Amino acid sequence: MLLVVIVSFFAVVIAFAFAVYLYLWVKRQPSENKRIIEVSSLIQAGANTFMRREYGILARFAGAAAILIFLFLPEPVWNGNLIGHIAMVIAYLAGTVLSAIAGKIGILVATSANGRTAEGAKKDLKTAFLIGFRGGSVMGLAVVGFSLFGVMAVLLLTADATILLGFSFGASSLALFAKAGGGIFTKTADVAADLTGKVELGIPEDDPRNPAVIADNVGDNVGDVAGMGADLFDSNVAAMASALVMSQALDGGFGPNTALVFCYAALGLIASIIGIACARVGKKGDPTGALNASTYTTTAIFLVLTAISTPLFPGFQWRIWGASAVGLIVGVIIGITTDYFTDDSKPIVQKVAHASRSGSAFTILSGVSYGFLSALPAMVGIAVSALIAYMLCAPLGEGYALFGIAMAAVGMLSIVGMIISNDAYGPIVDNARGLAEMGGLGDETIRIADELDSAGNTVKAVTKGFSIGAAGLTVISLLGAYMSEVNEALSGMGKELLTGFDILDPTVFFGILVGAAIPAVFSAMLILGVDKNAQRMVEEIRRQFREIRGLKEGKKGVKPDYDTCIGIATSGALKELIPAGLVTIIATVLVGFIGGPSAIGGFLLGNIVSGLLLALFMSNAGGLWDNAKKYVEAGNEGGKGSDAHKAAVTGDTVGDPFKDTAGPSINTQITVVSLVASLLSGLFAAFSLFG
Amino acid sequence: MLLVVIVSFFAVVIAFAFAVYLYLWVKRQPSENKRIIEVSSLIQAGANTFMRREYGILARFAGAAAILIFLFLPEPVWNGNLIGHIAMVIAYLAGTVLSAIAGKIGILVATSANGRTAEGAKKDLKTAFLIGFRGGSVMGLAVVGFSLFGVMAVLLLTADATILLGFSFGASSLALFAKAGGGIFTKTADVAADLTGKVELGIPEDDPRNPAVIADNVGDNVGDVAGMGADLFDSNVAAMASALVMSQALDGGFGPNTALVFCYAALGLIASIIGIACARVGKKGDPTGALNASTYTTTAIFLVLTAISTPLFPGFQWRIWGASAVGLIVGVIIGITTDYFTDDSKPIVQKVAHASRSGSAFTILSGVSYGFLSALPAMVGIAVSALIAYMLCAPLGEGYALFGIAMAAVGMLSIVGMIISNDAYGPIVDNARGLAEMGGLGDETIRIADELDSAGNTVKAVTKGFSIGAAGLTVISLLGAYMSEVNEALSGMGKELLTGFDILDPTVFFGILVGAAIPAVFSAMLILGVDKNAQRMVEEIRRQFREIRGLKEGKKGVKPDYDTCIGIATSGALKELIPAGLVTIIATVLVGFIGGPSAIGGFLLGNIVSGLLLALFMSNAGGLWDNAKKYVEAGNEGGKGSDAHKAAVTGDTVGDPFKDTAGPSINTQITVVSLVASLLSGLFAAFSLFG
Repeated sequence: MLLVVIVSFFAVVIAFAFAVYLYLWVKRQPSENKRIIEVSSLIQAGANTFMRREYGILARFAGAAAILIFLFLPEPVWNGNLIGHIAMVIAYLAGTVLSAIAGKIGILVATSANGRTAEGAKKDLKTAFLIGFRGGSVMGLAVVGFSLFGVMAVLLLTADATILLGFSFGASSLALFAKAGGGIFTKTADVAADLTGKVELGIPEDDPRNPAVIADNVGDNVGDVAGMGADLFDSNVAAMASALVMSQALDGGFGPNTALVFCYAALGLIASIIGIACARVGKKGDPTGALNASTYTTTAIFLVLTAISTPLFPGFQWRIWGASAVGLIVGVIIGITTDYFTDDSKPIVQKVAHASRSGSAFTILSGVSYGFLSALPAMVGIAVSALIAYMLCAPLGEGYALFGIAMAAVGMLSIVGMIISNDAYGPIVDNARGLAEMGGLGDETIRIADELDSAGNTVKAVTKGFSIGAAGLTVISLLGAYMSEVNEALSGMGKELLTGFDILDPTVFFGILVGAAIPAVFSAMLILGVDKNAQRMVEEIRRQFREIRGLKEGKKGVKPDYDTCIGIATSGALKELIPAGLVTIIATVLVGFIGGPSAIGGFLLGNIVSGLLLALFMSNAGGLWDNAKKYVEAGNEGGKGSDAHKAAVTGDTVGDPFKDTAGPSINTQITVVSLVASLLSGLFAAFSLFG
Repeated sequence: MLLVVIVSFFAVVIAFAFAVYLYLWVKRQPSENKRIIEVSSLIQAGANTFMRREYGILARFAGAAAILIFLFLPEPVWNGNLIGHIAMVIAYLAGTVLSAIAGKIGILVATSANGRTAEGAKKDLKTAFLIGFRGGSVMGLAVVGFSLFGVMAVLLLTADATILLGFSFGASSLALFAKAGGGIFTKTADVAADLTGKVELGIPEDDPRNPAVIADNVGDNVGDVAGMGADLFDSNVAAMASALVMSQALDGGFGPNTALVFCYAALGLIASIIGIACARVGKKGDPTGALNASTYTTTAIFLVLTAISTPLFPGFQWRIWGASAVGLIVGVIIGITTDYFTDDSKPIVQKVAHASRSGSAFTILSGVSYGFLSALPAMVGIAVSALIAYMLCAPLGEGYALFGIAMAAVGMLSIVGMIISNDAYGPIVDNARGLAEMGGLGDETIRIADELDSAGNTVKAVTKGFSIGAAGLTVISLLGAYMSEVNEALSGMGKELLTGFDILDPTVFFGILVGAAIPAVFSAMLILGVDKNAQRMVEEIRRQFREIRGLKEGKKGVKPDYDTCIGIATSGALKELIPAGLVTIIATVLVGFIGGPSAIGGFLLGNIVSGLLLALFMSNAGGLWDNAKKYVEAGNEGGKGSDAHKAAVTGDTVGDPFKDTAGPSINTQITVVSLVASLLSGLFAAFSLFG
């Protein structure tokens, strides 16, 4: 155990050191174009404004949550030990703070790397790719480093796995704000900028006259960099926490299973570091290929490293290795099938583009249909990996079967450092493209930036599928963790323990149906939030074009008021997010107090099942529409300006909040609900109407 | 028992007699306008063509199914008794035949009533309403009469509840063809007619020059009359069958519980007869109000009649009465909340219409969001009614709790005769509106027909919500019936019995995830089927306008070739339907042979949960878009021809296959899967990989 702890801390230290090295490397790259520096610093300032306000509101929320946690978790404070309650509060706050720091670092690097990537693209593809990718990698390493460090610190200091759930809940709280809030922000700005700029005035995308253009670029950063980082921080912590809750129960404290969890997490981090270090592309190479190659390399390294080290543990648990290998491989397969549905060189996107010829209704109908179909392989993949992991590990003894599923989730998330690097690369090169345009770097540079951007979009779909799959497996193991928690509470009260959640038990069934409706309601509230907020911003943009003289004509020296737009996007995003978050939490609490612990088991299941379905549907349909539009813009089916193009733009506008706001936020919603349920399990066991 | 049987048969006889009376009454109404008679008979001929071909294909399918049933159900024929197998086959075929006859009667009356309603509208609203409503009632009475008669005959003749499941499966097979096939037909014609007529050529809806116009009117009949009738025949039989499987188990054969099921079904039929007889509207009255009033009257009569007769049964089972009352009341509440989301005098539809001002993307986004939100009340309603029914009946003894849920479903479906009457009223008055236009009956007549049509649309949303709710409760009790069947098989093999389906059992979980993906895949295949088929028909319509001289100009005596369009819609609908149906059945079989009986339990649950969610979402979003378009056309948000109107038309086109093809077919898909699972349970228990 001690050896593993030392190795893990060592991995964390290497990760941080490597992140610092990459950050300094990025900073050393030339940044000379004044216009780019100016705009880039506007983006940085805007992102900081959003994050300051977001963290401000979050701090109040976290403060209130901390007080409730102190009073009631894991049981009312007047029954329990004071120190445990204080530890829980500290763990919760640590979870929010570490995730926030990782997000802050990600934004800092991304907003430094975007301008430098644009200037690198003036030199060649190879340089620009490296700057974009390494900029993203800093965030990847920071997220994984902080999450592993945090989990280890909490567990080693308290030796109480329940407190880990508090840490995980902290990470989830932050992710809810960062992912859903950032998602509303980014789409508010994007939709409003397109509607007024492209549609009403006919000025190009990223035109600096548009008052929303900086907000749009800020959105890429806060939504896709900080938001995605917080989301995967959350999933990664949740996967480790649920595996550790079970391993601690299996080991009766620290033991070989707990050591194995840490070992796998550390080896995943090391594999990601090697993968990141190796990623590069030739002068005229293929950036998509390079990104995918590093993902496969990382996967292979992780599988080899764990295959070598697993026999070193007492009892040579190859079954557990098998479970995590299955998880990882299925994750990669989900990524590949997602790619099939969203890549514009494959038939599906082309079919949707073709359907657009008959009008926007057919863009929508075909996109919705393929979006529904795309859910099947991922759902079956998750189902099969859970089944195999369970069957593999069940012979090890009681409790090992669910632990196997948890280890499949840990395996799937082992390469998360690489995944985040790929993901954060996207908004950096997207920003770089806009900056190259605004900085007037010439057509060849914009072409290179476009190529980098297109790779970012393709890889993003893959990583999104991967992260939904990982969340799916994680929450299954959270369901197991929830049962451990409930039974601990029940045994403390001398009540009968739960042996499972029977579908035919009416309280379970009640929970399932209500739980299944929640992701739909949550998504709807976020999408309506984007809609409302975009309307506000459209009003403001129209006002500026009306009232600021010379802006429309592009008179020299006349600038739009970027800050007001950023302010609207910020305050609106946070205002729209809070009701959606509260509805899900209140629904959980209501179901718990009405139906008791069994109803909550059903509630979590319903939430997972419909959440996975809707998240996959919305993410993939959104990606599909986005790429169908790009495919038409590349000159197919009539090209830009044709009726098919108009229809494809409608599809893309519908897809935007699907894929960047609602779809990926559902992951976080599921984790939040699971953790709230686990943490409140003692209360539900004690007080409920039908339980 | 004997008394109940006599009363039930008596109720069936009255229903048939009343149906014959109403049919003759409709036939006696004047039908004089030559043009109307001509078009009306074209519609009748087209509907007959479709149904003949549909029944032809169905006959082959049913023949193949009958052979498989004979060989394998309930266990391989070489193990079991020959007579039981023959009885099962006969019951299966009887289920298809009775439902087919009811559908055929519905079409016959509806296509006679449509022209007479149009001519009645020339006189006044009161007369036209009565003809339309009474025409629909014939179908309602026939469906309920045949379903009650069939269920009683099968049970009394065989005294074996398992064979009832065979009858129910027959009804489901037919419903799958009628509802999904009819749904593809109707939307193929509708979409193709609109695209070429309204959009490309700018000619009005229902213009006789359009070659697809007859197919469109045929579609209303085969989709909404025959399809909806078959769907509710199926739900009603399934609800009675699952209640009877349980009551037979509770009674150990015939006994008070079985008698109670028949009694409630018969009283529901009597209540519907009274409700139908009382329905009428003043000369200048409000048809929506009249339809709703008869629904409420029927509900009240049923509650009173059952409250009076329940104490006559041994043991005064007021708890069971309570369960069925809860089911019925929740059904009505679901109908009312559905109305809130889809009625154009309520805020939601108006908001979507308003959002259309910003373009079609916002019509879609807001409609999708409210569609998602609309699922919540219905899901919670079903969850709560199941919970209350279970809790009410659990104290009666083991097995009564699930029986309570089954009785809630029976209660909800008790007024199904009234529901079908309201529902079949819709397409009759919709046809009448078109006929009034084609027959040149003048503006005042068209206005009256419009008013009747609008009432039909509003009430349709309510009955659709009701039928989804009923299907939801029914399939929960089918889940219970499935467990009884599995356990019978398992005990026959001397294997350990199932005590439930635990979510944390990996085979159950595997089944849940796969089952949840199936309704999405099924819907996607149907929507893509409509899309493909509409493209074929659009080609044909363009060809006719190109090749038939004088058609476009409306030259006298030049007629389009209506039959070819009907032929395309027919063959395409059946071609697109079969793969979708097969995928769901094959998925069920695969999951069963891989995961065994427990996996199928999970599969059914996943299927129910995601099926309910998607069915509610698609039906309500579709209704919402339809009425938003109508709201704009009534002169709001810019009125006809405005940008908002174009966007609203896009919404309506997307919504059409949602609400009339995919959404309502999911019900049937769920029932089919549940029955396949129950019938194959013996095979799954004997042969499976992980079971």
